[in-house]
Amino acid sequence: MRSAVVVVDMLNPYDHEDSERLMGSVHEALPAMRRIVARAREEAVPLVWVNDNHGDWSACRPELVRRALDGRAPELVEPIIPPDDAGFVVKARHSIFYETQMEYLLRQQQVQRIVLVGQVTEQCILYSALDAYVRHINVAVPRDAVAAIHDDLADAALRMMERNMRADVGEADVCDLGDHRVGRS
Amino acid sequence: MRSAVVVVDMLNPYDHEDSERLMGSVHEALPAMRRIVARAREEAVPLVWVNDNHGDWSACRPELVRRALDGRAPELVEPIIPPDDAGFVVKARHSIFYETQMEYLLRQQQVQRIVLVGQVTEQCILYSALDAYVRHINVAVPRDAVAAIHDDLADAALRMMERNMRADVGEADVCDLGDHRVGRS
Amino acid sequence: MRSAVVVVDMLNPYDHEDSERLMGSVHEALPAMRRIVARAREEAVPLVWVNDNHGDWSACRPELVRRALDGRAPELVEPIIPPDDAGFVVKARHSIFYETQMEYLLRQQQVQRIVLVGQVTEQCILYSALDAYVRHINVAVPRDAVAAIHDDLADAALRMMERNMRADVGEADVCDLGDHRVGRS
Amino acid sequence: MRSAVVVVDMLNPYDHEDSERLMGSVHEALPAMRRIVARAREEAVPLVWVNDNHGDWSACRPELVRRALDGRAPELVEPIIPPDDAGFVVKARHSIFYETQMEYLLRQQQVQRIVLVGQVTEQCILYSALDAYVRHINVAVPRDAVAAIHDDLADAALRMMERNMRADVGEADVCDLGDHRVGRS
Repeated sequence: MRSAVVVVDMLNPYDHEDSERLMGSVHEALPAMRRIVARAREEAVPLVWVNDNHGDWSACRPELVRRALDGRAPELVEPIIPPDDAGFVVKARHSIFYETQMEYLLRQQQVQRIVLVGQVTEQCILYSALDAYVRHINVAVPRDAVAAIHDDLADAALRMMERNMRADVGEADVCDLGDHRVGRS
Repeated sequence: MRSAVVVVDMLNPYDHEDSERLMGSVHEALPAMRRIVARAREEAVPLVWVNDNHGDWSACRPELVRRALDGRAPELVEPIIPPDDAGFVVKARHSIFYETQMEYLLRQQQVQRIVLVGQVTEQCILYSALDAYVRHINVAVPRDAVAAIHDDLADAALRMMERNMRADVGEADVCDLGDHRVGRS
Repeated sequence: MRSAVVVVDMLNPYDHEDSERLMGSVHEALPAMRRIVARAREEAVPLVWVNDNHGDWSACRPELVRRALDGRAPELVEPIIPPDDAGFVVKARHSIFYETQMEYLLRQQQVQRIVLVGQVTEQCILYSALDAYVRHINVAVPRDAVAAIHDDLADAALRMMERNMRADVGEADVCDLGDHRVGRS
Repeated sequence: MRSAVVVVDMLNPYDHEDSERLMGSVHEALPAMRRIVARAREEAVPLVWVNDNHGDWSACRPELVRRALDGRAPELVEPIIPPDDAGFVVKARHSIFYETQMEYLLRQQQVQRIVLVGQVTEQCILYSALDAYVRHINVAVPRDAVAAIHDDLADAALRMMERNMRADVGEADVCDLGDHRVGRS
């Protein structure tokens, strides 16, 4: 089964009301995110960044990167800037699938499983896991590579993903990145 | 704002593995469901039943009603059978919106808010609330008119809907059914 | 490659303004439709009826059949009534895919090719062929088993499907119904 | 009613087999496209470029502009490069709506009518007009501001849009750009 690593909403200026709580959690999860991204690059696993455009429909990757770096926490952005050759998808709502190119992209690349890292565990990560599940796309969520605002809801979200969406919830460093060669399964 | 009451997955033969737990919860929630459905009928609020077809693509309302009545718990089905003039939408996955006519139906009827009752709180109800939220459709979930399998996850789901999806989570008997006249807001 | 035969909008009361023109064309196309449906049944090829609900969200198959039979041309309806075990999908707009369960149904049944018969060549048939094409689902349109309102537009529609959507446009009796066994391709 | 002008697939390297025919038509339609774009800018009408990414999921506006300029006909690209403040949406298939952010973008900007210019009349323009029509979004297609490959099919496509999708098909210079102020209708 071919996997892709999907980095969710990490180009963030951290200027909304819950940012303080979130920033602490991102600080903790960032090293595991970076390690799994590095591993994906080494093993030629498809990598896709998906990011909210915060309502600016003229913004593509360069603008979203710049605004995040100009925000309150460039130290949380700079280590996870998308490389030029990674997939990049703009989203306007919480799920990476809602009115985006994501499902088509995954089908075209013969990806049947996504490894979700980024933020926010109990919001965009949960909602994207659900939207993958209804589409019969398998999901893995390394619990040390996702960041939360409310720990209690994040914990419940991880249990929901594991129990009701059959997600593989574990640690980033032992997360299977799948046999990413097209045609194997 | 115009509301509709949506009855989710109540045509259930209760033959899957978690049915035992679920049946107890449905038994408790059924009276509040019936009261809110009755109130909707009195006030001419649009009513829609949405039900899983359990993979049978030839099944419409009559077949789904019959199979549920032929299942393990007809006493949980008979009191909530859809009337002939209610909307009826078939779904194949957990969310009432995923690859169904639901969004189009709501727009055509100028409904901007749905009141979700039925089952399962931490699964189809949560997922449908989320899909409404990303579509900017307001959501109410009367906590006494939804049934759960796992109480801890159901409780977390209700908090997620309230906190992160701005749902109106309260009691069925005081749930606002909105000004349902088209053209008012 | 597994095929399904899809019968579009044949439960029609023929009460709209263009019905007169359409009825003549349906009369001519009906025998070829019936032959290909019969062949599909013999060969156990999946069969799906998709029909507009004309804005009545409480209507399922029984109501749509009855209303069509109560319309202006029961002789055009009776020969093509869906059997109980055929798939049945309600649509509200022109394409069989727009906000319906159709794509999910086809994926679940491992169907990669649809044979479109029914009405109207230059409207629902064309739009459904297009929506199949963008989804990488192959399309066949037997030209003698589809009915039109305007012959010039129907002719252009068939050329568009053939040239730009790579549809197999031919005669019903020689239309390949595919190797419909799951797992063959 | 608020309108937006949508420029379709004009960032084209013109390296596919039908390019020769298409380039002649684009050359003729380009002046009318530029005039309507200029008028939209003067009148603050929302402008959105939608462009195929040709399967490169890492490409955003800068890459798509550069590749088109590096193609066979930079003189057909340079006059219609998107300004930095225009909306920009990537598509992977023919319709501007299929698995893109387009419908959400239009709803957010309270746009109920799109003016389609660009290429190809009998393909992406037709398919996008259809997808707008099923979504109850009004469509205008200035016939002198769209480019075709096959004139006969383009002519049929324009008649289909006018007759069956109620599109406003006319000349660019007299195309109503609507009352673009939010809240008017």
